[in-house]
Amino acid sequence: MGFEKKVLCLSGGIGGAKLALGLYRTLKPSQLSILSNTGDDFEHFGLHISPDLDTVMYTLAGESNIEQGWGRANETWTFMEQMRRLGGNSWFNLGDGDLAIHMRRTQMLAEGKSLQAIANEFCHHLGVNATLLPMSNDPVRTRVTTGEGEDLMFQHYLVRDMAEHVVQSFNYVGAAEAQANPELLALLQDPDLEAIIICPSNPYVSIDPILAVPGVRDALKACQAPIVAVSPIVGGQAIKGPLAKMMSELQVPVKALSIAEYYDDLLAGFVLDTSDAELAADLQMPGLVTNTVMLSLQDRETLAQTVLEFTSGLR
Amino acid sequence: MGFEKKVLCLSGGIGGAKLALGLYRTLKPSQLSILSNTGDDFEHFGLHISPDLDTVMYTLAGESNIEQGWGRANETWTFMEQMRRLGGNSWFNLGDGDLAIHMRRTQMLAEGKSLQAIANEFCHHLGVNATLLPMSNDPVRTRVTTGEGEDLMFQHYLVRDMAEHVVQSFNYVGAAEAQANPELLALLQDPDLEAIIICPSNPYVSIDPILAVPGVRDALKACQAPIVAVSPIVGGQAIKGPLAKMMSELQVPVKALSIAEYYDDLLAGFVLDTSDAELAADLQMPGLVTNTVMLSLQDRETLAQTVLEFTSGLR
Repeated sequence: MGFEKKVLCLSGGIGGAKLALGLYRTLKPSQLSILSNTGDDFEHFGLHISPDLDTVMYTLAGESNIEQGWGRANETWTFMEQMRRLGGNSWFNLGDGDLAIHMRRTQMLAEGKSLQAIANEFCHHLGVNATLLPMSNDPVRTRVTTGEGEDLMFQHYLVRDMAEHVVQSFNYVGAAEAQANPELLALLQDPDLEAIIICPSNPYVSIDPILAVPGVRDALKACQAPIVAVSPIVGGQAIKGPLAKMMSELQVPVKALSIAEYYDDLLAGFVLDTSDAELAADLQMPGLVTNTVMLSLQDRETLAQTVLEFTSGLR
Repeated sequence: MGFEKKVLCLSGGIGGAKLALGLYRTLKPSQLSILSNTGDDFEHFGLHISPDLDTVMYTLAGESNIEQGWGRANETWTFMEQMRRLGGNSWFNLGDGDLAIHMRRTQMLAEGKSLQAIANEFCHHLGVNATLLPMSNDPVRTRVTTGEGEDLMFQHYLVRDMAEHVVQSFNYVGAAEAQANPELLALLQDPDLEAIIICPSNPYVSIDPILAVPGVRDALKACQAPIVAVSPIVGGQAIKGPLAKMMSELQVPVKALSIAEYYDDLLAGFVLDTSDAELAADLQMPGLVTNTVMLSLQDRETLAQTVLEFTSGLR
């Protein structure tokens, strides 16, 4: 399909990481960079936790827990068992092996290393040959304003409260002061960058925090490579997570076209699931209708190939 | 044997905890207080680790790893495996469940709780009905001055460097400024305290840090209850740990009598192993010769009963 040089994808956690894995296995690993949301990073037990970065990393390393949908394969849970016995916090599940990555990252941050330098080192140790790009080395924290007027840290909203609150708006605290990851900006100006794929991630809490970092949206728009998004909404539902619930709470029609409209002038093309084929006619940009539901590893690779071919035709 | 009220034992880690368990099972659990060394506490991965407190707690809870000699039974090691993969520190082995206690303690210390309050809460959660008394709520850190002139944190000396250095002296940093645990001082003035047992622990690095806290040695001496020590040296050797090596490096004869002489005027009696029976004649205080090597649980209980009977005769 003619991608010999560099491809960038934007990804949140689980859903995005599935397509990132497909791309990773379809391209030469070193061709791929993954721009990762750090807006859902948070501090817990004194540890800096980067859920999306880690999900992508575990996924590309072939160590993600496929059944569970998050965390590491072959994980043990002795820490959490004991923490519960000792009366400690247990709302955020931390696997024993997963703890090592949080603790090591926390230690390296304290030594003054950047999220990017840490991601590079972790990828090296886990044998991941793609480049993981945190959107910024500075802290950005997604907060959710609820219909009840509460202002919740994203992980409290999502994990502790199981997304039960009605969302009213999102706030990316620190974004305005954050500096975009310089390696990302360099890549977006690199003539070797041939395609940008927005993975089927949640636009509000996975992609928007990335776009909220000053300069990132402009650099994406200015980039010569075509940007294509894959719909996270399939048949009026989200495959996983609270996206459909959020959209209806925000009075946004829960359909794939809403996502295309949301990303708007960023996109050169949009990818819809076959179950939404009838919507393609209403799309205000080039569209691809294909199976976007990635159950098997083969599904991930097939979607990656198909999306790359489609993007290739938009250059 | 007539102990109806309170008994205190002084203990370091593994060897001391064996006799503490014997006492715990021989007495009513609530009769027993264990005065625990915190001189080998240290900070690792940002966590406050109290090795001796935890060893005693795990031992009394029936959750210590008997074969290994330290740590928890039924432990998993996923954290350390991953930490090694990520290039992190691995000289101090931290079991997955053990991590929970360090993380919880660190969190509670940050909330302003004392080591004593934390020990009480942990004992409650683990079902330990004895009272664990950290020697002080303030930080005291044992350091080892080596023949090569180095000044090592105790865990670096013991665990990282496997006690390979020649010891010249010990320094209990912070001891002079530390306040003795007020619950300990209250117990030592309590007329219900009937016996004090110094467990077969290392005098230099387990018992001396306790005695170095201002007021503790004097309060022990002033206490009306008889103090009896059980020799950690048996047949010219230490059952476990670097005590015999330390003694020879300090030019102290490696024999049980050296321990009795070392504690000196604190003691009302001394307990020697049967293999050291011939030394009893040279003892300058009442002596008991009995089997002090605690292999089985029964050994621990038998020694506890025998020592309590001996102490009873010294009142």
